[in-house]
Parts: sequence; C-alpha cells; structure tokens
Amino acid sequence: MISASSDFRHLRRQVFVLLASLVFAASALAQTDPLPSWNDGAARKAIVEFVKTTTTQGSPQFVAPAERIATFDQDGTLWVEHPMYSFVMYALERVAVLAKAKPELTNVEPFKTVLSGNREAMAKLSMGDLEKILAATFTGMTVDEFSAEVTKWIAGAKDPRWKRPYTELVYQPMQEVLQYLRDNGYKTYIVTGGGQDFVRQYSQATYGIPPEQVVGTAGVLKYGYDKSGKPILRKLPKLLLNDNDTGKPEGIQLMIGRRPHAAVGNSTGDRQMLEYTGAGDGARLMMLVLHDDAKREYAYGPAQGLPNTKVGTFTQQLYDEATKKRWIVVSMKNDWKKIFSFE
Amino acid sequence: MISASSDFRHLRRQVFVLLASLVFAASALAQTDPLPSWNDGAARKAIVEFVKTTTTQGSPQFVAPAERIATFDQDGTLWVEHPMYSFVMYALERVAVLAKAKPELTNVEPFKTVLSGNREAMAKLSMGDLEKILAATFTGMTVDEFSAEVTKWIAGAKDPRWKRPYTELVYQPMQEVLQYLRDNGYKTYIVTGGGQDFVRQYSQATYGIPPEQVVGTAGVLKYGYDKSGKPILRKLPKLLLNDNDTGKPEGIQLMIGRRPHAAVGNSTGDRQMLEYTGAGDGARLMMLVLHDDAKREYAYGPAQGLPNTKVGTFTQQLYDEATKKRWIVVSMKNDWKKIFSFE
Repeated sequence: MISASSDFRHLRRQVFVLLASLVFAASALAQTDPLPSWNDGAARKAIVEFVKTTTTQGSPQFVAPAERIATFDQDGTLWVEHPMYSFVMYALERVAVLAKAKPELTNVEPFKTVLSGNREAMAKLSMGDLEKILAATFTGMTVDEFSAEVTKWIAGAKDPRWKRPYTELVYQPMQEVLQYLRDNGYKTYIVTGGGQDFVRQYSQATYGIPPEQVVGTAGVLKYGYDKSGKPILRKLPKLLLNDNDTGKPEGIQLMIGRRPHAAVGNSTGDRQMLEYTGAGDGARLMMLVLHDDAKREYAYGPAQGLPNTKVGTFTQQLYDEATKKRWIVVSMKNDWKKIFSFE
Repeated sequence: MISASSDFRHLRRQVFVLLASLVFAASALAQTDPLPSWNDGAARKAIVEFVKTTTTQGSPQFVAPAERIATFDQDGTLWVEHPMYSFVMYALERVAVLAKAKPELTNVEPFKTVLSGNREAMAKLSMGDLEKILAATFTGMTVDEFSAEVTKWIAGAKDPRWKRPYTELVYQPMQEVLQYLRDNGYKTYIVTGGGQDFVRQYSQATYGIPPEQVVGTAGVLKYGYDKSGKPILRKLPKLLLNDNDTGKPEGIQLMIGRRPHAAVGNSTGDRQMLEYTGAGDGARLMMLVLHDDAKREYAYGPAQGLPNTKVGTFTQQLYDEATKKRWIVVSMKNDWKKIFSFE
C-alpha cells in the first residue's frame, strides 16, 4: 500500500511537471506575435485591443463566440486591385473566348473595343459597357461551367507588374489579421463587390475562407436540366444583389443575418458596411486600407491628393468621415512592414 | 542514472495506462447510440451507413470535412407543421396588432376575414390572400423590429393541440440526426420555405443551427437611416428568394455555394433540393419524412391516401419518385420510437 501510494505521488509529481511544461509552452505560443508584418502604431494597437476586449472572459465588451463575425472587402483590402480588379481582367480575357463561339460579337461594342486590345480605348469604356461585358462573361452558363473556367483562369493568370498569380498578391498583414481573428473565435467573411461565384473558387486556398463565407455581387439563378436530364443551375443575366455601397449591409443581413463586430474595406463602396458595423453596441473595429505606398504597391485616390481611378475610391470625404468616427485608417506605407509574403 | 531511467520507464508505463484508458473511454463514448429514438430499419441504417462511408478515412466515398454540408427543410421535417405553419400562425396573429395601428384594415380583405376569427372562412383564404397577409406582417418594418417581435411571439405562442411552445414540438429523432451529423463534421443548414428572418430568431436555441446557416424565403432589404440618423435595414414587400421548389437549390447555391451531401424534406417543395443533392458524385443521403402517424402526430397527404392539406404535400408522385431514386422515406409511425423529447 505504501509503495502504491508513493508511486501515485511520484506519478502525480511527474504529471504536474508535464502539465506545467505544457502550460508554459501554450503560453509561449500565445505570446508569439500574431501580427509580425505590422509596425507598432495606432492600427496594430487597435486590432490587438479589439481582439482582447471582445474575447477575454469577464471583459465588459466580451462577445459570445457565436456572435464573432468579421467582414472583409476583397479588392484593395485583401489583395491588389490596381490597375484593374481581377474579376474584370477575367471578364476582358473571356471576351476573346466568347467571340470564338459567337463571331458576330467582333463587330458589336463594347466587345469590339475589348477585342482590339487597344488599351487606351479600353480605358475609356463606361460602366454601362463594363456591365455588358460582365453580363456576357459571368452569366448564360451553368454554375459548374463558370466555376471550372474561373478555377482554370486563376491558376494561370498573372499580374502584369509582379508577374505572379493574383492569388500571391494578397497582403500579408491582412492574412495575419484574418488568422488572428480566426484564432480568437471569429468567423471571417469576404463581402465583395466582385462576383460571389468568382471569389468562391479560390477563397479557401487563398484566404482560408470557405465559399459559404463569401458574400458578393450575385445574379439570379435558374434551376433546370441539361439535355441528359441532369439538374443544373444556370446563371441568368439579371442582378440579384449588387454587393457595393448599401448592398454590403443588405448582403450581410441576407446571407449572414448578424451585424459584424469588425469590418474592413478600402473605398467608398465599403462605407455603409463600416457604418452599419459601427452602429452596433459594444466594441467594434472599423478599418480602411489607404493605398499610399507608390513604391511597394500603389498610391491612388483623392485622399492621396491623386486623381480618381477606376478602382477603389478613397475620397477625401471618406477620409474625413473615418477621422470623425475614429475608424482606423491603415497606411500601407507606415503600418505595414511588408506588403507581400514573398518580399 | 539507473534510478532516473527506472523512474522514466515507470512514468512511461503509467502514462501508457492513462492513455489506454482515455482511448477506451473515447471509444466507449463513440459507441453510444447516436440515434436512440430511431427503430432499427432501413432509414436508420441508411443514415448510419452514410455517415460512416463519408467520414471514415480511406473510404472510397470519403468527403473532406470542409465539404460536409447537410440541408434540412424545417416545417414538417424538423417540427410540426400541421394544422398550419408556425410562420403563418405568426402572420395571422400579427394582423390584429397591425389593425390597431391601421384601423382601415378592419374593412379590407383578406384582413377582415382574419380579424373575424371565423376559422371556416380563414381556411378558405387563397394563396394570394396569404401573400398579402405575409407582405403586411413580414415587411414594412426594420430587421431589428421584426426580430424583436418574432422573438417575443415565439417565446409565448403555443400549439393548440399540445399546449406547448412550437419550439418544443421538434422531432426528437431529427434532433439526433442533426447532432449526429455535426458530431461527424457536417455543417447543418435549414433550407426552409418559411421566412428566413423568422426562423433565424430561434434556430440556434431550438436546433443548434446558427442564423448564418438558415436559408429561407427572403425579401429585398433597403439600407437607410432612422430619424436619429442611425443606420437601419428595412424589409421591403418585394420577394428576393422564394425558397420553395426550384428556389431551394437556387437558394443553396446563393447562400452556401456548395452542393449538399445530405438533404432532408417532407414535401413536393423539397423535391428539387433532394434531386440536386442526389445529382452529385459519391455517397449522398436523400430523405423524406412521411406523416403517417395519426395517433402520435398526424397522417396527411395523398401518399397516405388522404386529401391534400394546406401544408407539406407528399404526393403519390413524389412517393413513386422517391422509391425509384432510392430516396429514404422515413415513416414516423414505424421508424421513430418517439416523436417528441417530452413523450
């Protein structure tokens, strides 16, 4: 009996040592910097403070795990959008494929201009022209056909400046924020003005965000059958959700049904999403990425004293609103140690 | 040294015993019947077989955890729908509240009939009438106002037969299937013809399904501001998604973006969801609940040789299709040991 009891005490001591080292290891792990690509500064501080205050048991601003929702714009917020959104690059390149099947397009605008390859003329295409191009390349096929085309394209397409796949041009600091939030029980969503079915093809591999957590611009679908009688979902050229501006909070309610606790964007198209997020109770994190790094990425938009571009408009008005409402403006130049993982 | 080494061997042996008992406990836990309210039979067998074949590593029909999606109709599949869907009961009761604010409704059909309380006349209301009632009671207010009203109603409303809250009239065997699927890495969704914002108010507490995993009939939302300038989302009387029939696979693609591996329903409104699910590769589970238990619940619908009702139509044609396609028809009478947890 004495021996057994002594054995037990011995085991208990050993287990204690084992547990103590586990606790130590876990605590060391927890103290690893979750945001190594961020410089010290107000933005980084705000992110860490938000996560701590909303996830620490007993904090007056504690948020129940089920309610931890964070929404991120994609183009210009999670990856490069300049000189043109990737989904538009896809659409422009698809026009050539379309024209092969329908040669009559060759003589019809705006397809004629796109097929000419004249970049100057293409730059002058209007929003109405763009809508026609998107309708022609994002609709009229089945969901499966579209998914297969996008998957193929995204694997091969390269950004003209970096000569790398678009999916490598994701901002490393934002990848860290996504991971940091997920590690703290947040569900991360993309809420994009881009095509929902487009972004869903690479969201898991690129951002660790599954397709069901992608909200985007979406068209009407029509269930039917192919010639063999197999069920198909056809993409109709009719808009169901324009996931820009007011469409962002509307899409969030439609597809998530909860108000986010954190929202991140980079342009006027994200304004209402941030405003809606900020109108909730308790701690909320609203951030806007400012493209002010002409050397490592781009500098554009009126908030930079630069002319408007076709992408992500960060107006002076938005900048002033952000300042007034204490939304965090993230300076790519000053807040980010590195932009891309391959730097 | 010898002593230390002996100590180490001793510890190792103890840790081995500890681990072995943990493994044993875990395995005993795993062997606890996950479906205690199901009788032995083809339905139960099909569910267990489906879960095993899709979640066992090395199985030729293994499904990656991220792709494990299961969709469930609600009314008549997860809870009682007879004599009338709960969301319609809500709408009918709300008419009286509406009439207080707008007394002119008292003289306008179909509101006049609803306010009369004449059950015979109410039973004769058409689908067009019902749409008017739903538009008046499910739209015109903000999302927050609607949520608050539904939350209040669902806490107090009682089913006339069982004199219990609707949320207690959930089918215990289906609760076990939901839990069993989740325990095996499936994400469980509700895909309902009922109002999406309605079901979201109680889905977590009632089924363990969070609001973002509820797909349902949804209207257009409009972002704007209240008098104090606070952002609001207003529910417009304009249908965005009719989540019945073809609307179910369309809604699944819109809000989930993946084809389910399991789909469960109980009426013709679920036919396309099951068909779409079954058209995928590998193992798929399609089930229809047959209401054939007049004693413990209800028996209704043409598949029972009974006349059509206003709810969940399980036609003979659907029954024949299920048989042909080997969809599992769940007999409430024969497959379920108990219907409700309180029995």
